[in-house]
Amino acid sequence: MLHTVPDPSFQCRQRLAESLRREQMDWALIGAGPGFSYFTGRRPIITERLLVLLVSAEGEACLLAPLLQAPLYQEIEGVEVFTWADGEDAIARLAEILNRNQPQRIAVNDEFYSGFLLPLQAQSTARFLRGQDVIDAARCQKQPEEIVGLQHAAKAIDRVWQRFCDSCGALAGQTEFALRDRIRHLMQQEGFSEISWIDVGAGANGASSLHHGSEKVIASDEPVVFDFAGCLDGYYGDICRVAITGNIPADYQALYDIVLHAQEAAFQQIRPGVSAESIDLTARRIIAQAGYGDYFTHRTGHGIGVAAHETPWIVKGNVQPLGLNMVFSIEPGIYLPQRWGVRIEDIVIVTAEGAQRLTQSPRLIVVIDAAAEAVSYAN
Amino acid sequence: MLHTVPDPSFQCRQRLAESLRREQMDWALIGAGPGFSYFTGRRPIITERLLVLLVSAEGEACLLAPLLQAPLYQEIEGVEVFTWADGEDAIARLAEILNRNQPQRIAVNDEFYSGFLLPLQAQSTARFLRGQDVIDAARCQKQPEEIVGLQHAAKAIDRVWQRFCDSCGALAGQTEFALRDRIRHLMQQEGFSEISWIDVGAGANGASSLHHGSEKVIASDEPVVFDFAGCLDGYYGDICRVAITGNIPADYQALYDIVLHAQEAAFQQIRPGVSAESIDLTARRIIAQAGYGDYFTHRTGHGIGVAAHETPWIVKGNVQPLGLNMVFSIEPGIYLPQRWGVRIEDIVIVTAEGAQRLTQSPRLIVVIDAAAEAVSYAN
Repeated sequence: MLHTVPDPSFQCRQRLAESLRREQMDWALIGAGPGFSYFTGRRPIITERLLVLLVSAEGEACLLAPLLQAPLYQEIEGVEVFTWADGEDAIARLAEILNRNQPQRIAVNDEFYSGFLLPLQAQSTARFLRGQDVIDAARCQKQPEEIVGLQHAAKAIDRVWQRFCDSCGALAGQTEFALRDRIRHLMQQEGFSEISWIDVGAGANGASSLHHGSEKVIASDEPVVFDFAGCLDGYYGDICRVAITGNIPADYQALYDIVLHAQEAAFQQIRPGVSAESIDLTARRIIAQAGYGDYFTHRTGHGIGVAAHETPWIVKGNVQPLGLNMVFSIEPGIYLPQRWGVRIEDIVIVTAEGAQRLTQSPRLIVVIDAAAEAVSYAN
Repeated sequence: MLHTVPDPSFQCRQRLAESLRREQMDWALIGAGPGFSYFTGRRPIITERLLVLLVSAEGEACLLAPLLQAPLYQEIEGVEVFTWADGEDAIARLAEILNRNQPQRIAVNDEFYSGFLLPLQAQSTARFLRGQDVIDAARCQKQPEEIVGLQHAAKAIDRVWQRFCDSCGALAGQTEFALRDRIRHLMQQEGFSEISWIDVGAGANGASSLHHGSEKVIASDEPVVFDFAGCLDGYYGDICRVAITGNIPADYQALYDIVLHAQEAAFQQIRPGVSAESIDLTARRIIAQAGYGDYFTHRTGHGIGVAAHETPWIVKGNVQPLGLNMVFSIEPGIYLPQRWGVRIEDIVIVTAEGAQRLTQSPRLIVVIDAAAEAVSYAN
């Protein structure tokens, strides 16, 4: 589905041009994907047809679009639109535009298809370089309008979770798919134009961080892991929480508390200048010290903005320092195969003093009572 | 959403290996996308994490997957699974696997991200070549199980359209978005696990082949163009039809009849050995002869299978001969800016004698009566 994206795109392109000059790049080449949204303010249609934004080191911008899509990308301040029609050689057209100023080095964004890049390389003497640090990294530090958009999405995600817990009735006896469908319905009601995923994993199914639900009927005393994300008015929200009907097994509560501790410690570690990997290490150390290091099988978090996943990556090896107004997830987990899993995910923003959570849902296991359909939070 | 794909994947990989040998390629490198589904029988999760299938000219296959996704890709006959964990260098791991047998030429599928290809090129002395003709073209000629899957999807699309026309009531007075939501609901009821698009364009909005709907309230005597597509059990269906409440303006009927003629003539032209572009030319000639050549702004059709759009492209410049069991759309259109548009789309399969339509919905404007909510077809 199409939706508009708030448009600070002119300023974004000027900052990109500065980065290009600093890195001695002549062009940035940005294919259809979140980067295109960010630098144009228009959400692209991603298809097999070539659609690309070009930004020069001088700050000039143009885009090359399929003729039939051209109306979607008109009237972007300072962006000239070139088109190609079905049956024409789109790559030759792109090469012609790029080669005009005899470029030496061209930065390419990650999502640009190899099917476009390979024939383009054959039609240009320029060096094509991975532009992640120049192009994609520009999206890290959020502008004021973007922060508003991310807060808006986070609040809507919180409302979906609250309304779900209030209305779903006893989890026990329902299937994972039925719960997924209820969340989808609530997300649509809240105005999400894209649903990125809705993962519902009960009991052992919660031991995979990628379980998309099944016909499994949920039992009493069985913890259920919910993770859902989507796009609202151009910005993404994402959350992970656990709920249960019946009693929380003591073993599970103990596991949960370790993850809660790790999540809180990672959150407290955040401040400008601290490296992304140090946040990951903080969460990982606590889980490892509790004896579950081998069962925390993914990075601690990911940036979020005009994409559900974007830089900064909160992962070992990423020495990038965190900066003011970066927005990302903190979502440590423990997954015991054939048994169960825990993950707690919040979206947070880096502030001058440390960090704030955009996600406001309580971080406790939600106990949904079978009889009264009343919701309580386990302490 | 995940769903399984019927698995003729072992045979597919063997045919691919033959093509690689014929083209003197050492490896095919297939990123997350429809090609991955086709050659593994598993639908990939497309993210920023490297997931790739490798098929050698000897027919050996392996895949490199993110550790946390690995459970999704286990137990594919004849495919060894390697993993990489968050924080590890996935590209170095891929280069290590590829470089083992000192390859000279590596075919890359179109959807592989440049963000993976560029650093890989720097870590290998092999030549990376666009693999479209070797890899993606393999999907053209459908296997028996695939034809069953495509028939199944086409019938479900027909049922959605029929049920929509039977139940939507008068179009006049409703918004485009309301009609879109009704179609979405029916598609979900029919079991579509992915909705690719639902375009609803009334009056002048029908003059764009990419109008995704709006809050516009539909008027009486205003033609509405509907185009929707989605994935059912691993295969895609796609249709375009027109409906109206009230009377069909004589000018519109005349325009519609030209497109209907072009669509039928293109369909009649199909047989094994005829070039893809000749089908496009047939439709285009009829529309041009009627004086609307400049208003048919896109190719005549696209292949369909494990992707909504795939080869063969029914477009000028594609001299590829059509072959038995190729499946594609035939969807000529006329778009008069600020006025209205017409498009009629069927999915067809090439047979020994010519072609058959998988789409069975009547190709006439559906008149939905305001009073009786009765549906009739205009002749």
